[in-house]
Amino acid sequence: MLLSNFTYICNKYFYLVLLDSTMIQVEEALSVVAKNSCKMPIRKIKVSKSLGFILAEAIYSPMNMPPFRQSAMDGYAFLHSELQHLDVVSTSQAGDFSNIELAKNEAIRIFTGAFVPDHLDTVVMQEHTSRTGDALAITKMPSRFANVRNEGEQIKENELVLPKNTLINPAAIGFLACLGITEITVYAKPKIAVLVTGNELVKPGKQLPKGKIYESNSVMLEAALKGIGIKKVKIIRVKDNLKATKKAVKECLSDFDVVLVSGGISVGDYDFVKEALLSNGVEELFYKINQKPGKPLFFGKKDKKIVFALPGNPASTLTGFYVYVYPALKISMGFETIHLSKITRKITTQFENTSGKTLFLKAFFDDEKVTVLESQSSAMLNTFAKANGLICLPFDSITIEKNQEVLVIPIN
Amino acid sequence: MLLSNFTYICNKYFYLVLLDSTMIQVEEALSVVAKNSCKMPIRKIKVSKSLGFILAEAIYSPMNMPPFRQSAMDGYAFLHSELQHLDVVSTSQAGDFSNIELAKNEAIRIFTGAFVPDHLDTVVMQEHTSRTGDALAITKMPSRFANVRNEGEQIKENELVLPKNTLINPAAIGFLACLGITEITVYAKPKIAVLVTGNELVKPGKQLPKGKIYESNSVMLEAALKGIGIKKVKIIRVKDNLKATKKAVKECLSDFDVVLVSGGISVGDYDFVKEALLSNGVEELFYKINQKPGKPLFFGKKDKKIVFALPGNPASTLTGFYVYVYPALKISMGFETIHLSKITRKITTQFENTSGKTLFLKAFFDDEKVTVLESQSSAMLNTFAKANGLICLPFDSITIEKNQEVLVIPIN
Repeated sequence: MLLSNFTYICNKYFYLVLLDSTMIQVEEALSVVAKNSCKMPIRKIKVSKSLGFILAEAIYSPMNMPPFRQSAMDGYAFLHSELQHLDVVSTSQAGDFSNIELAKNEAIRIFTGAFVPDHLDTVVMQEHTSRTGDALAITKMPSRFANVRNEGEQIKENELVLPKNTLINPAAIGFLACLGITEITVYAKPKIAVLVTGNELVKPGKQLPKGKIYESNSVMLEAALKGIGIKKVKIIRVKDNLKATKKAVKECLSDFDVVLVSGGISVGDYDFVKEALLSNGVEELFYKINQKPGKPLFFGKKDKKIVFALPGNPASTLTGFYVYVYPALKISMGFETIHLSKITRKITTQFENTSGKTLFLKAFFDDEKVTVLESQSSAMLNTFAKANGLICLPFDSITIEKNQEVLVIPIN
Repeated sequence: MLLSNFTYICNKYFYLVLLDSTMIQVEEALSVVAKNSCKMPIRKIKVSKSLGFILAEAIYSPMNMPPFRQSAMDGYAFLHSELQHLDVVSTSQAGDFSNIELAKNEAIRIFTGAFVPDHLDTVVMQEHTSRTGDALAITKMPSRFANVRNEGEQIKENELVLPKNTLINPAAIGFLACLGITEITVYAKPKIAVLVTGNELVKPGKQLPKGKIYESNSVMLEAALKGIGIKKVKIIRVKDNLKATKKAVKECLSDFDVVLVSGGISVGDYDFVKEALLSNGVEELFYKINQKPGKPLFFGKKDKKIVFALPGNPASTLTGFYVYVYPALKISMGFETIHLSKITRKITTQFENTSGKTLFLKAFFDDEKVTVLESQSSAMLNTFAKANGLICLPFDSITIEKNQEVLVIPIN
């Protein structure tokens, strides 16, 4: 799975890039994430709470819809004949049920959605009639069967309502409800632990001692998770020591489906996360990606549980979330389209990528162009808050000319 | 505001379209909605709960960020000089604060994000050193000031953090949190009443008597509202009689900001909604739109409260929601971009619009093309559940050729 050292040549320059054995390219990392993420178990939920879930089984209609012959108009129901003058003898309002028999020269007043008695075949819209007392004149005769919706015209009992893997949108919810369906089987959403490491971190709202900073990754990740419909998120804070980190990782692995660790994953002496993960039986699938920002990004697995350890710098954390965590979570929730959509736009300035790494640049795009935003620092979120996309420049593209089309990943 | 009868000529046909005095064109209706919707009051909320809200005031930084000089690397901090061999005398881990003075030939072990003592100016990354015991050799001398992040380098106290009207995304939440900000002032989200009328309607899950159908618009509208971040929705059901409808409307107007009425708005004898609205002091702004589906669509206002009465057919209800209710709600929540985005795609089949009405067609689009889906019936949602967009064909465009570019409104 891991790429060995390799050499590559590009149009203008000659590079010798030595990737250490734990570092892989972005495309490879994405493929490892996709291969090692798996769907959550299925569960029954109420249709009224199912927005954004993915159907885990096909649904067939329990009934005909409409369940009876319905008027499609406000007007008069009658048995079609050559007669244009009829007596109005009764009324069928929506919701009524009266299966009366009428003579050929009789009609009933009827409203949209109302039951059409079995032996009547046609509805004339009220705009095509004139009425005096109970005497009705049809001024424009409709064709036979006009304005009557047949039983099961829209869907018949046992016909497919929605196939497996349908994303439940508002229309699907309405469709299920109108067939009387109240529960469906979907893929569950993962329970997520966000494990925040770092002695320097203080919760916002508290006094900030010298040498410390406010911890922001947990609320940010919680919001990003909420943005894709995941609300079961527990935030766990741990000091930079191996024992505490090991214990916290153990708890996370027992109680949650996905663990997101923030910080403690680079090569500093106090970065205990990797050791804590490995000692808890997490299999390392990759540890570093040839990218900027966010080179140290650990992805691992224990049974069906997956772990991402994201770098602590906020902008790196969020980039890692959008590019790697997002598709893993989409898979777990049963989605077939797992990545954020990609679009191409013309870049507004020339850009050099001499890093040999794949770059994810905070950017703002409109219908035609994309602009690289100022300040791409991985420590700071101000640029990210203004960005609506990430430009992805592959490691092997060096000079990007102004107006060249580049790949953009829309975010938010 | 209302268009009078008018005549128009198009390229192939000659039409005389008589619009009655209460019927207006789609563009006019959209403009009336935009003019008569207003922002909700502002309120303070927790940053951690602010995803998707719009900032109602500019935010300035309460502090410098970083709040002190920080190391940008794992390595060694020292006072830059010609000396390449230094003694390591202490350690600064992230979160530590020890403002010690060092001799010129001394260094401290330092980690990313850690405090750099005041009189030191440079950090060398650990990869550019070799160390034996406390003896440190710098193998590649960095330039003076390298790898030190200055106090306030990212943002200074009192500098603008986020301007008024910013949409709060995960990055903005992280940015605010890292500055210790825990509360912000945003536009409130509207409380919404969904008033469902119709004697024929039965709640899903119950037995369905002959002549009746399951009520699906309320859960569908609730889901559509949830989809744009509105959770405070109360569903109220009322029978088709004037007294009950009047009473329900009165309650809705007193307790909610926006009232969505489903059904009871067409011209049938049992459609009491309009009368109930007017008698409760709701000013009619329009009542019919020259469109299909969903011609009868009432929009009105009482003080700052707005009312939409949507036709009862599910697909008409949802179309009305996306086209008219959505922008009104966006305005109320403080958004500046209020409409669903519009894109153009090539239509895959020739299409005739001889109705003289603006059509909203359920459709499926990809990166290049858009296909009109089968079954455009306004009573049924099966097509809507498969659609990812609505094609909007203006009333005055008659023949649409295959591969002609048409306007598509993405939904979901």
